[in-house]
Amino acid sequence: MFVVVSYDIPDDRRRLKIAQTLLDYGGERVQYSVFEMHITARHLERLQRELSAIIDPGEDSVRFYRLCGACQGTILYLGVARPTDGPGLLII
Amino acid sequence: MFVVVSYDIPDDRRRLKIAQTLLDYGGERVQYSVFEMHITARHLERLQRELSAIIDPGEDSVRFYRLCGACQGTILYLGVARPTDGPGLLII
Repeated sequence: MFVVVSYDIPDDRRRLKIAQTLLDYGGERVQYSVFEMHITARHLERLQRELSAIIDPGEDSVRFYRLCGACQGTILYLGVARPTDGPGLLII
Repeated sequence: MFVVVSYDIPDDRRRLKIAQTLLDYGGERVQYSVFEMHITARHLERLQRELSAIIDPGEDSVRFYRLCGACQGTILYLGVARPTDGPGLLII
């Protein structure tokens, strides 16, 4: 499945660890605190457990947005934003 | 329709203008550079034109993720992240 992960992590060390973990799971960094990834349901659950163990639940925020094939086809980009892959719509 | 807008805007003045425009269109700021909003197709087009006029296309990045009802129901939150509304799943 296709998942967008966005986060707000004030602490540098934790933010670095979150970003590295997302990279380890095959995530592609599309913006400073936004990753896109293709991931199985099983790996997504494991990823969420790992991120839960890293974050400070009282300070940090992580959001996971799953996009079905139809929703993926409607992703729009402005500026230097580029699709990671798949059929998004590009606005020059 | 439900839309997630995320952005990377290095310039403070432009970033402020982008955030204010998203608020003007009824967006709710869920993370530092992530907004969620319910918006019509017509208003989304107008919003994209307005944001296009603000950004520096060579430096700034804006992504629009539209989530259908089913996808909205699978949004997951860690830490202080909270649903803006609707049926997301909350992980304590």
